[in-house]
This record gives sequence, C-alpha cells and structure tokens, in this order.
Amino acid sequence: MSTPIASLDTPVALVDVPRMQRNIQRMQQRMNSLGVRLRPHIKTSKCLPVIEAQIASGASGVTVSTLKEAEHCFTQGISDVFYAVAIAPGKLPQALALRRKGCNLSLLTDSVAGAQAIVAFAQQHDERFDVWIEIDCDGHRSGLATEDNALIDVARILSKGGMSLRGVMTHAGSSYELDSLEALQALAEQERALCVRAAERIRETGLTCPEVSIGSTPTALSALNLDGVTEVRAGVYVFFDLVMHNIGVCQADELALSVLTTVIGHQQDKGWIITDAGWMAMSRDRGTQRQRQDYGYGQVCTETGDWIEGALVTGANQEHGIITLGTAQSDDIVARFPIGSRLRILPNHACATGAQFPDYQAMDAEGVVHTWSRLHGW
Amino acid sequence: MSTPIASLDTPVALVDVPRMQRNIQRMQQRMNSLGVRLRPHIKTSKCLPVIEAQIASGASGVTVSTLKEAEHCFTQGISDVFYAVAIAPGKLPQALALRRKGCNLSLLTDSVAGAQAIVAFAQQHDERFDVWIEIDCDGHRSGLATEDNALIDVARILSKGGMSLRGVMTHAGSSYELDSLEALQALAEQERALCVRAAERIRETGLTCPEVSIGSTPTALSALNLDGVTEVRAGVYVFFDLVMHNIGVCQADELALSVLTTVIGHQQDKGWIITDAGWMAMSRDRGTQRQRQDYGYGQVCTETGDWIEGALVTGANQEHGIITLGTAQSDDIVARFPIGSRLRILPNHACATGAQFPDYQAMDAEGVVHTWSRLHGW
Repeated sequence: MSTPIASLDTPVALVDVPRMQRNIQRMQQRMNSLGVRLRPHIKTSKCLPVIEAQIASGASGVTVSTLKEAEHCFTQGISDVFYAVAIAPGKLPQALALRRKGCNLSLLTDSVAGAQAIVAFAQQHDERFDVWIEIDCDGHRSGLATEDNALIDVARILSKGGMSLRGVMTHAGSSYELDSLEALQALAEQERALCVRAAERIRETGLTCPEVSIGSTPTALSALNLDGVTEVRAGVYVFFDLVMHNIGVCQADELALSVLTTVIGHQQDKGWIITDAGWMAMSRDRGTQRQRQDYGYGQVCTETGDWIEGALVTGANQEHGIITLGTAQSDDIVARFPIGSRLRILPNHACATGAQFPDYQAMDAEGVVHTWSRLHGW
Repeated sequence: MSTPIASLDTPVALVDVPRMQRNIQRMQQRMNSLGVRLRPHIKTSKCLPVIEAQIASGASGVTVSTLKEAEHCFTQGISDVFYAVAIAPGKLPQALALRRKGCNLSLLTDSVAGAQAIVAFAQQHDERFDVWIEIDCDGHRSGLATEDNALIDVARILSKGGMSLRGVMTHAGSSYELDSLEALQALAEQERALCVRAAERIRETGLTCPEVSIGSTPTALSALNLDGVTEVRAGVYVFFDLVMHNIGVCQADELALSVLTTVIGHQQDKGWIITDAGWMAMSRDRGTQRQRQDYGYGQVCTETGDWIEGALVTGANQEHGIITLGTAQSDDIVARFPIGSRLRILPNHACATGAQFPDYQAMDAEGVVHTWSRLHGW
C-alpha cells in the first residue's frame, strides 16, 4: 500500500503537525512562564486549523497583517483581532464594517497624521476605535521613537478624539540579523524596555495606556524577563524555518514546513538534480543569503525528512529547482535520485513559501494527510 | 467624481491594458515577419483575458508551466497546449486525463529515463502522446546537448514506443544575464542554430521531427532570422518588467504591470516612505540585483504612472514597503507623499509579482478598471 504522502502531486507544502503542535506548546509555555499573554501573528500560516491550534493552546486573540485575515478570523469566531500595520485611511471603512459586525478589531498608527485620520473618520461615523501606537525600538522599519514628542501628541489626539488608546506596541524586526544568544537577549531587553518606557511616558501625562505589546519570534524566545509587558506577538515560531535556525532559536527537528518535490531530470556533468519545485514553490526569499549559513533556496531532505548534508537548492526558475549536493557527492546522482523520486525542501522563510500555495498538506502523527486551505491576497 | 483607480483598495496589481495590447501586437508582428508561429507562455499572466488577447492577435496555442494551467486553458476552449516542463512520471495520469477529454496536450522530456517512463505509461493505457525533446542551448538549466548521443536514444525510444515525436525545443534562459544587442543577437542565433541542428540530427536517423520550438522574450526580440524554426515561445513580453528593461528589450512606456500602493507612514530622518506594498505584494524577486541598474524591490512612480527618478523600494517586509528617494530629495517627504497618498511600483519580475495576487485590476484606455482573476497553485 502506498503511503498517503506518496499519493500527493508535487510540489506541495507539507506541514508536520506534531512538530507544529510542539512549536505552539513551546511558545505558549514560555509566555505563560514569563507572565504575558500570547497573541500569535497569523500572517505566517493564514490558515484556520493552525490558528485554532494556537488558540486551543492558550493564545489570546490574534495579530493580523491584512484586513482580509481579520475578516476571515472573525467569520470563524475569533473576534479579538489586532491589525498590526499602520492603517491607511482608505482602509478605515473596512475596519469600521468589521467593528459594526461585532469584531473587536484594534488598529495601529505611528503618526499625527495617521491618528488625525482615524479620529476624523471615527467621529464622522460615531465610532470609538481601539488604537495602538507603534514604537520603533530598533530602527528597522516604522514606529515612533520612545522619546519622540510626537508619541505624546499622537496619544493626546487619539484620547481627546474619543478613541480608546489600547496601548503601545513594537516589533524588534532587527532580531533577524542576529545569531548569538547574548545579542538576542540584549535586543529583547531593548525591545521590552523601550516599549514599556513609551507606555510610561504616556501614563505620565495622565492618559491611560493599558497594554504593552512586543514581539518577534527571536526575541520572544530569548527574553530573560518581560516585566511591564502585557502581551507578545510572534508568528513564524509556529513552523520555524532556516532563517530561524540560523538565528539559533530552533533545532532542525522543529522545522515544521517543507516542500515535497519530484525529481524531473539531471545535468550529470554539472552535478545538478532538477526538480519541480522552482521559485514558484519555494518563493524568491533568500533570507539566509547573508546569514551564517546560506541555504540557497532551501535545504534538501529525503522524502521522509532527513537532511542530506550539503544538498541545497542552488538555483530556481519558475517551475524548475536546481539541487547541488556539495563537494564530492555528485558521482552517481542519476542512480541515487532517479527521475520520479521525491525529496523534501526546507524553506528559508516559512511566511514567504507558504504564500506560494493555496493550501497546506498537513501530515498528522499517523502519517495521514489533510488539506488545510490558506488565504491568498488582500 | 473619483476616478476608478482611486476606489481600489491597495495593494493591487494593475495591468495597463493598452500597453499590454501593444506588447502583444509587437511580438506577434515580429513573429509574423520572421515567418514563425508564436505560442505564448502563459506562466506570466495565468489569466484568461490576457491569453485570449494573445490568441486574438494570432498566437497558435499556448505554452504552460503547470498542468493546472493546461486544464484551465482547455476548459476555456484552448486545446493546443504545450506543457514545457519535463514531465514527472507521477503527472502522467493527469496528462492522460486531459488528452482523453480532447485536449491536444503535448509533453516534454530530456532523458532516456523520462522517455521510457512516458512510453511505459502510454503503452499501459493505449495512448499515443505528443512529445517534445528538450535541448540545452546555453547550459542554464535542463535539456540535452545538441551533440549528445542521448538525443538520438530518446528520439528512438519515443518513436519506437509509439509516441508522436512532435519536435525539439529549447529556451535560452541565459538571455536574462545579457544587456547588449550584440550579445542578445549572438545568443538568439546560438539558440536557433543548436535547436535546428538537434532536429537535423534526429531527421538524419530517418525519424521525423516536424517542429523546432525556441524562445525567451529577450532572444525572440533580438533574433535576426529564425530559419528552420517553426515556433517561438515567450512569456514576459506581455507585461514586460524592470529586468527586461535592464536587458534592453523594452522601453519604460511598455511596462504594463505595476502595483498600486498607499503611503502609510514615514521615517523622516531616514528619508523613508512606508507603504502597504511589502514583499507579499512585490514578491521577493530581486532580479535586477546583479543587472546594470538595481531597482531594489521596484521603481516608484506617481499614481498616474510617471517615474519618480531615483525613488526605489529599497526595503520590504511582509506588508511594509520602504521607499527611498535617492540623493538630496528627501527633505519634504511627509508633505510630498502624505499618509493616504498613492504610488505605483514597477516590479522587477512580472511573473513573480503577478503570482502574489489572486487577480489583476485591468485598466482600459478609458480608465475603467476590470477584475481579471488569475490561477494560483498547482
């Protein structure tokens, strides 16, 4: 009898469900022990069974990167939703519609102009939005500096405008550039301290600022304490990936997402194995390019998931992947990896690779595969 | 009255339909004048109205990169379909089902083992597949070298096995690395000559080899003659992109695909404009990274499509794009590009950026926008 995995057409995105469950437990238990709530960022999976597993494990609400994710979660009965991207004024009607249906959707801003746009729209529609203020804790993207006077201006605009100032939030995205425990612990402390301090600055003016939300998978898994923090947002921990492995926050046996592929040819003189997992399957993400180990477009494993040391996807066209085996292993590639044989590829970046697929094939502990659909687009 | 484009939620993938139509005409007329058929590769658009415009302009059948594309085309009445990736044996049942429904689907192989698998499966199911043999004309990916004796072996296996040997095909993918007319003309001639010679080698054995199919957008637009060639496959010409612009085969006013985005914030001291088009919208494709002009994640234009010289998407997170304006233009970015204002981003690679979206917003000459859905997944 053929195994279920053998009956799958390739390429497919395989989720190792027992690994995923362990990853969810690990992060939830860590947050529990640090005394904070976990609000997982669902932009990684965009997939209801994954989100449900996170909530069943103790997660408090969800973080989303698009209003489409918010709508999907709300439709499925998840109503505490934080849209953690500074909202474009043009998206306020969609946010309002969700709130009016009963979704406890909270919004984000990091500017006077953004806060004014929220207030103006809310007053026009007699709404009281829950709003977070974004803090820049490491200079990598958006947010207000903790000591920026605009922070107080934004808090006042929101409060005087009748909004509910939910709290401050930050994301230490520069943690993706680190790979030592000491540096990660230092950044986690910086993320915590700057965000807590931002809340204190607001509170010192007499305004309420109940929540302090921080988070990135690397800092969440490295923080020594989260004093003053109320919740952590993290996303990619649910699957992990090679970028996280390079950073040092997961082991090889925690990588829960892979792409199953079929060998379709060889260029024997070059030592190339050609597969049907090109960049359309793996994504163009080269997140490990500047890390301690460059995995090309992915680490090659056997069909059952064992790493083939040195074997990487070194080239990718749209529907062709090119695998090389590394030094002195290329002699008998046609015999070792015949046409029709299958391999599994671990991706650089689970968020990017997942997005290439309409669904995951979720493999449970018994080796039974279920199709889990995921969101695409906005 | 607001213009239709102003009513679109962002990010969206905009297709400039008049430009697309001109691109289609340009390629079709060139192929007509060179005396060959055009079989467009639909992996770029994966979108029926685009394919229909290509066929209306004179295209002979389509080239596909997945069997899902083949099924979609056949369902929509397009039955001459070339699946131009060496077929994995596991996909033969799906190919057979399509043939049995009446689709004139042709397959590809580049190995003895691949040919044997096709023949074995076909004989088992009493089928006569149309099969092409892939030739490697430039060493960039798959295919048999023209002078490889395996070429004759494969042709014999297919013919003796009862298959219809449709012809030989090649793809000069290394054209993406060039940027001078002379080099492109030389590669186009190499592509033509090596593929024609492969057909001749097969014919010299007494076997029939009716077709010689070549193509990449850069070589198709550079070839001085296509003597001996019967058809050309090309894909990205339908939209063009910054990679093609760097190669030199299109002008700025031929780029038909862009991403409409909204400004959501700034980091004024760094000269950063933050938008809602991150890598989820643009893709992670950095195809211009090693070309003559590195466009980051895309060239920034005004909402109406005028290039803002020096303005590039220099950073991308999942739902955040970071735009910088280049030298000495960053003084008043908050006033020039206020929150809520809109920009258009030209992508590096139209195939990769399109794939991030469930549909295109197609803008006709009157500025009216239509939603054109596209395929996702396999």
